[in-house]
Amino acid sequence: MTLDLAIRGGTIVTATDIYKADIGISGDKIAVIADRVGAATREIDATGLYVMPGGIDSHVHVAQPQGPGITLADDFASATASAAAGGNTCIMPFALQQRGTSLRQSVEDYRRTAEGECHIDTSFHLIISDPTSAVLGQELPALVKDGYTSFKVFMTYDDLVLNDRQLLEVFEVARNERALVMVHCEGYDTIKFMTERLERAGKTEPYYHAVSRPEVIEREATHRAISHAELIDVPMMVVHVSGREAMEQIRWAQQRGLKVFGETCPQYITLTAEDLKGLNMEGAKYVCSPPPRDTASQAAIWEGITQGVFQTFSSDHCPFRYDATDGKLNEKGRTSFRWVPNGIPGVETRLPILFSEGVSKGRITPQKFVELSSTNHAKMYGLYPRKGSIGIGFDADIALWDPNRQETIRQEILHHGSDYTPWEGFQVTGWPVMTIARGTVVMEDGEIVGAKGHGQVLSRQESDYVR
Amino acid sequence: MTLDLAIRGGTIVTATDIYKADIGISGDKIAVIADRVGAATREIDATGLYVMPGGIDSHVHVAQPQGPGITLADDFASATASAAAGGNTCIMPFALQQRGTSLRQSVEDYRRTAEGECHIDTSFHLIISDPTSAVLGQELPALVKDGYTSFKVFMTYDDLVLNDRQLLEVFEVARNERALVMVHCEGYDTIKFMTERLERAGKTEPYYHAVSRPEVIEREATHRAISHAELIDVPMMVVHVSGREAMEQIRWAQQRGLKVFGETCPQYITLTAEDLKGLNMEGAKYVCSPPPRDTASQAAIWEGITQGVFQTFSSDHCPFRYDATDGKLNEKGRTSFRWVPNGIPGVETRLPILFSEGVSKGRITPQKFVELSSTNHAKMYGLYPRKGSIGIGFDADIALWDPNRQETIRQEILHHGSDYTPWEGFQVTGWPVMTIARGTVVMEDGEIVGAKGHGQVLSRQESDYVR
Amino acid sequence: MTLDLAIRGGTIVTATDIYKADIGISGDKIAVIADRVGAATREIDATGLYVMPGGIDSHVHVAQPQGPGITLADDFASATASAAAGGNTCIMPFALQQRGTSLRQSVEDYRRTAEGECHIDTSFHLIISDPTSAVLGQELPALVKDGYTSFKVFMTYDDLVLNDRQLLEVFEVARNERALVMVHCEGYDTIKFMTERLERAGKTEPYYHAVSRPEVIEREATHRAISHAELIDVPMMVVHVSGREAMEQIRWAQQRGLKVFGETCPQYITLTAEDLKGLNMEGAKYVCSPPPRDTASQAAIWEGITQGVFQTFSSDHCPFRYDATDGKLNEKGRTSFRWVPNGIPGVETRLPILFSEGVSKGRITPQKFVELSSTNHAKMYGLYPRKGSIGIGFDADIALWDPNRQETIRQEILHHGSDYTPWEGFQVTGWPVMTIARGTVVMEDGEIVGAKGHGQVLSRQESDYVR
Amino acid sequence: MTLDLAIRGGTIVTATDIYKADIGISGDKIAVIADRVGAATREIDATGLYVMPGGIDSHVHVAQPQGPGITLADDFASATASAAAGGNTCIMPFALQQRGTSLRQSVEDYRRTAEGECHIDTSFHLIISDPTSAVLGQELPALVKDGYTSFKVFMTYDDLVLNDRQLLEVFEVARNERALVMVHCEGYDTIKFMTERLERAGKTEPYYHAVSRPEVIEREATHRAISHAELIDVPMMVVHVSGREAMEQIRWAQQRGLKVFGETCPQYITLTAEDLKGLNMEGAKYVCSPPPRDTASQAAIWEGITQGVFQTFSSDHCPFRYDATDGKLNEKGRTSFRWVPNGIPGVETRLPILFSEGVSKGRITPQKFVELSSTNHAKMYGLYPRKGSIGIGFDADIALWDPNRQETIRQEILHHGSDYTPWEGFQVTGWPVMTIARGTVVMEDGEIVGAKGHGQVLSRQESDYVR
Repeated sequence: MTLDLAIRGGTIVTATDIYKADIGISGDKIAVIADRVGAATREIDATGLYVMPGGIDSHVHVAQPQGPGITLADDFASATASAAAGGNTCIMPFALQQRGTSLRQSVEDYRRTAEGECHIDTSFHLIISDPTSAVLGQELPALVKDGYTSFKVFMTYDDLVLNDRQLLEVFEVARNERALVMVHCEGYDTIKFMTERLERAGKTEPYYHAVSRPEVIEREATHRAISHAELIDVPMMVVHVSGREAMEQIRWAQQRGLKVFGETCPQYITLTAEDLKGLNMEGAKYVCSPPPRDTASQAAIWEGITQGVFQTFSSDHCPFRYDATDGKLNEKGRTSFRWVPNGIPGVETRLPILFSEGVSKGRITPQKFVELSSTNHAKMYGLYPRKGSIGIGFDADIALWDPNRQETIRQEILHHGSDYTPWEGFQVTGWPVMTIARGTVVMEDGEIVGAKGHGQVLSRQESDYVR
Repeated sequence: MTLDLAIRGGTIVTATDIYKADIGISGDKIAVIADRVGAATREIDATGLYVMPGGIDSHVHVAQPQGPGITLADDFASATASAAAGGNTCIMPFALQQRGTSLRQSVEDYRRTAEGECHIDTSFHLIISDPTSAVLGQELPALVKDGYTSFKVFMTYDDLVLNDRQLLEVFEVARNERALVMVHCEGYDTIKFMTERLERAGKTEPYYHAVSRPEVIEREATHRAISHAELIDVPMMVVHVSGREAMEQIRWAQQRGLKVFGETCPQYITLTAEDLKGLNMEGAKYVCSPPPRDTASQAAIWEGITQGVFQTFSSDHCPFRYDATDGKLNEKGRTSFRWVPNGIPGVETRLPILFSEGVSKGRITPQKFVELSSTNHAKMYGLYPRKGSIGIGFDADIALWDPNRQETIRQEILHHGSDYTPWEGFQVTGWPVMTIARGTVVMEDGEIVGAKGHGQVLSRQESDYVR
Repeated sequence: MTLDLAIRGGTIVTATDIYKADIGISGDKIAVIADRVGAATREIDATGLYVMPGGIDSHVHVAQPQGPGITLADDFASATASAAAGGNTCIMPFALQQRGTSLRQSVEDYRRTAEGECHIDTSFHLIISDPTSAVLGQELPALVKDGYTSFKVFMTYDDLVLNDRQLLEVFEVARNERALVMVHCEGYDTIKFMTERLERAGKTEPYYHAVSRPEVIEREATHRAISHAELIDVPMMVVHVSGREAMEQIRWAQQRGLKVFGETCPQYITLTAEDLKGLNMEGAKYVCSPPPRDTASQAAIWEGITQGVFQTFSSDHCPFRYDATDGKLNEKGRTSFRWVPNGIPGVETRLPILFSEGVSKGRITPQKFVELSSTNHAKMYGLYPRKGSIGIGFDADIALWDPNRQETIRQEILHHGSDYTPWEGFQVTGWPVMTIARGTVVMEDGEIVGAKGHGQVLSRQESDYVR
Repeated sequence: MTLDLAIRGGTIVTATDIYKADIGISGDKIAVIADRVGAATREIDATGLYVMPGGIDSHVHVAQPQGPGITLADDFASATASAAAGGNTCIMPFALQQRGTSLRQSVEDYRRTAEGECHIDTSFHLIISDPTSAVLGQELPALVKDGYTSFKVFMTYDDLVLNDRQLLEVFEVARNERALVMVHCEGYDTIKFMTERLERAGKTEPYYHAVSRPEVIEREATHRAISHAELIDVPMMVVHVSGREAMEQIRWAQQRGLKVFGETCPQYITLTAEDLKGLNMEGAKYVCSPPPRDTASQAAIWEGITQGVFQTFSSDHCPFRYDATDGKLNEKGRTSFRWVPNGIPGVETRLPILFSEGVSKGRITPQKFVELSSTNHAKMYGLYPRKGSIGIGFDADIALWDPNRQETIRQEILHHGSDYTPWEGFQVTGWPVMTIARGTVVMEDGEIVGAKGHGQVLSRQESDYVR
């Protein structure tokens, strides 16, 4: 039987192993791994390259409404193209319930919007913003059964915040349905309180966004969410952890034997609050929540990564245009940081940054890179063993990395919808040179070569981490 | 000059010292301490007795409204008589603002009710239940200047709970006015959530009161309050800590250098949740919040006492009658623990329990007893150096203790307004045999001998613990 | 090309992955993994079985001298047969330097004794008992270069103990040569002190062995070794950790970013000190060091396993006969626990116990079992990527496990040289049914089918954990 | 009855209280404290001054042999004069057993040397350097009964170091006799190891003294001593703690409920290792053990002080001359830091430094100053309630402090035997202006006015901290 695709001579890396072998792909699956696999319709020479499971970015925002007049810079076509260019073969965006609407309806709208538009596979988490009894009692259980096995809740943001009562009710459903809850841990009231005092004092530049939500606010919310999860006895993922305070709460919980998990992002190992101090409104480019902290926090995040406190490393891709009326420079944003859209683009740069800062600088092994960038995402969110590793029967989701290639991140080489990158000029060693999604080459040497529509919208199983 | 009162031959105990000497009192002040003081109008033989600063109970509830049809069992006359009988010379009840009313007005009502009724000195904390801008901006600052230098806020109870925003606003006033905030740390939403689930399951007996508010709920609120205090940079007192979880949060905060203080109570070293399991409604007698936990928690509370995590040991006296329609056995209370009034009497038994369990059982020294029962209360709440120790110029507030006297606590020997005591039959070693309040003997051998009206309503200075 | 061996239809498990596939073996290497591999000289049906990397037991004692008149019950033939029967494909015994002798000479003696006798591959750690300047300056560096890349030192035992000075000197060589030091952490002086007091009090039964070396003694030595490693800046492995105290020291060190690793053993999750209380001298069967503790310690060890504090799970196989004058019942042993030989057999039972208590009882995943039993041993001690996983080019070291097979551990089914097993009657679920060592079936259904001499004595690379 | 001495109008400070009153002294005791005491033979005006218990310095070295050719710079006359000038009324030097000699004999030699020479009271701790069975079995128990209720052991220094076995044996005697052990916690072997490597590298200047004994070495020994104390179940005092590492071990032990106490010294809150870098041999002036660390360590020591980890603040006065052949500049000392005598003078400057850095800078209250400088020393070492506070019947040991007086510490104003002070030029606010020892003025305005011989050599009771 002739293989469809053969990848020859590369170094295969999984979350535990690293060895040289050929890979043979048949259809959209990995069919054989061997010293030397047989002939294939297409042959790829991977000599000198790492052959890794394609990245899975389990935290990206695509095509979400962002309030009056503000829109995200990426639709599913551009987001998945950008992801593929960054070595990813799967993204997990959010289907956001807007208050007053049916969750099921929201989900189906997102799904419909995504279908036929994606370059790589896509699977939705839910965002619960309005946990009515219908949502909690009927819609959510049914959606979990349909493969939406994870949902996110917010402890802040006017349009999204749940109060403690609502958090507990959502956690209860998660326990009963064996779903995984993801929590954005920042305290609503405290941020609001801080924001008003800053505004009252005329401190309205983008930098004060960081001042308005210091680490103690993130820590408090993290502890609160952990306590709720402990009370309900449900596993929980704390997303986008930014520094020592929250990290130590998660580590403390883990040491007590709680099923509390953690995620961190490139911004927390490379940026600081100083970046928000750019002249004019340049600082707005770095406004995201939680904000980047300082270099000591970066060290704390590395501690959390190497000690296993964090299971996943995601982008929290939430792209806006900068120089646009529907983006960072919207009219109100100039009057106060409060109106600067929260979020930065990052789905394309996540993996080069982790590879370079992690593997190339000797902080982590290539295997740990795979674990953080792909395997644990698949296991955490119920895509394993379909995705997340290189083994027989897995989806042929593969990225080829040149570990020695030096690149400078620049907006002009990226594929996202934003008109800037926070990492403009950032130098990396290690770069994805080809992305293969379910057996099809979708990115080659920086070019998107697949047609949109190749990516499917996937249902998922129960998380491996929910017992 | 002839002294008014001489106490001869006793062993004087302060928070640090213990030595034999006579004390001479002139008017309401301690005038001389010596080997042998001169003649006095009244001579008291204290041979074989400890001569200690009178107890200060900084956490008692008197004559507060408790919702429709429910009343507290003590007015100021009975509460201060009961306190005096238990070796106290000062209590600090609360002036509770009811929502929709002026704080100033509330305070003056309480003050007026108390004046002329008290056997011993009394000084009010404020309870803020409705932090309107008028309260925060005018009333509270003015009241602090008038000597109401501490106020309490609640994180639970329908009529009292403040949300995080309100907590922060009150904390901010406290910082600006250099007042001390006391916080009841239990989470409102979580208790409500638990209560509903228990009721839905038909678990309505008094015991389920304890189940509805486990330690994790107290811990979460404690961490939250600590974080708010850290953000605002204001000292804070966590009242009535019940077990290891909250204790460890306070210890953690103290180790980080935060000015976070702790109080605990007799119920947390002697009772357990099992006591709420009494037949029929007997368990209602032990319903208080937080509820007593278990023997491991008692050990944790002793850890906190001996390691200095707790500065004060109070009663949280909140007396109800049991067999009365306005008390524990009110009609609704039989339908669910939710309607059983929260609180137990304890102002009279606090010190014998601490003395017996602490000093007599060798867990603490007599000096530590004085520190926990009197000195730190005076320092914490701005009554020092007027009260809280035995020294020249201090108020002659003195209790004589027979360290060897064995007693059994029984309702029939107590002076409070409740018709029961949770410690019925509890045996103690060590008993207060005389109480002298500002130079006047107010209790002798269990008899209240002073006239009500001797006690004054006091203003206070800034706390010694607020820098 | 015809394969030599095909394993069909099993579920392959690595430290990260689990999936169904065939494996094809050519010579002593894994050549292909595929949906279906081609024809092979020998075909093995693995339907319903786990196909796992053969166990590596990195802590076994074979053919070591044990003092006058006492001998170990296993030579290399019996030890490797027993290991193979227990699902292992590699053991790492110790080449012990006796004081006054050359380390190089000792090593060569061991090697010569082993060669031609082993059923499975074997590789020696060194034991340094006499770190003379010749040993430190010449022999040790040369031996590391020759592939003896790990050495063990003892903080107790008359014939082996090194003082702190010597420990530091050995650690210094380890750092310079990039070798890994393994440390037996128990305090010599303290044990001696305790032993004398116990003997003086007539407490000489085997049980007092456990009393003579409580957890605090293990903890102190662990802290001391960690501090030495921190001072010298060298990675270190704390072997056979028995309980919470030492575990927490290691966890504390890891959180500080130190390269401190941990190993634990079956005895610490299944036995307790109570087992040493057997009638007559039965307790002697359980005498090992550190001794088993109690059930709370077992829980602490599981914490350490699941939280990643421990990297390896070994047997510390140190087999004696019980009813023999050169074993547990030697004459002096009856006079005091001090003379009962320290050690228990376990190379054959290690993996069934871990599988049953871990995987079958739901505490760990099959992948974690592979990590603890094989992969991390290979990585820790420089055998990776030759051994430790299932991948192309790896040694065809494979164990087939029936996850559902129920067995009762009994001496009569074991292959070791001891005349008893501490786990007599212990019931397990999960059993190794075939062991393949470098492509050759060496155990089938409990029978040793390979000839001795198949196993080689291996050199090793630098540890993956020494950066 | 006419008083001998009246101190009028001052502010009395104890470890808990602060209030204005007169003090009347009769003979060597405090007889009366009152608003206004009667006439006295001598009247002292203390208006504007603090009237504090005289300092007790529980850690000073006087007239000890220091090895061939090296002598301490103070005899009992100069040491006690210097102490008195610094606001002290009692010192506790050490009676050092030299190896091969009887402990009893050593003690009597010291006692005889001291008697008749002291300006203030003096009481000896023992130093056990040779715990023979005679010492452990007879001498030590007898000496404890004679009032030598504390003894110190060393974990380092050639002539003093005890091995773990010996430490345990001494601890065992302490437990049996209810004595308190003080431990110098630094690891002998590790320091030796470091010293040799530094010398071999030609790093012999005084600064390398600090490098040869980093914090990890102090921490390890501290943990070891704590473990031994835990094993034996005996209280223990860790003397002269220098930084965070050891402090955290002690705090950890205290939180576990162990009776582990801590002492720190002025050098650890004011000096750093940088001070050892003086030109030529100037750095030798700062050579002491443990060495001063850095400013972060100073902050950690303040944490330990304010959190109650440390009970006592002593000088570790160990005075050498600098420019003398029997002092810091001895011939061998120029060849290596190893030969620079370890120790600095400080009995006279201890209290001004603590007062200024603590009270005047707002870090501690005057009461805490009294606790750290006097009360806890008396309680810790069995001099309480004879000494350590201001109360009726206490020794009239009193220091008058001018809290506002600004001074610059200079060698020329000091009374010790050294020819330098490490704090030359150090500015302080707060200064002792009069010292009264057992009713006699011994220092007035910097002048020693009492005759030597007034001070007695005292026996002591059991420590208040030994249960």
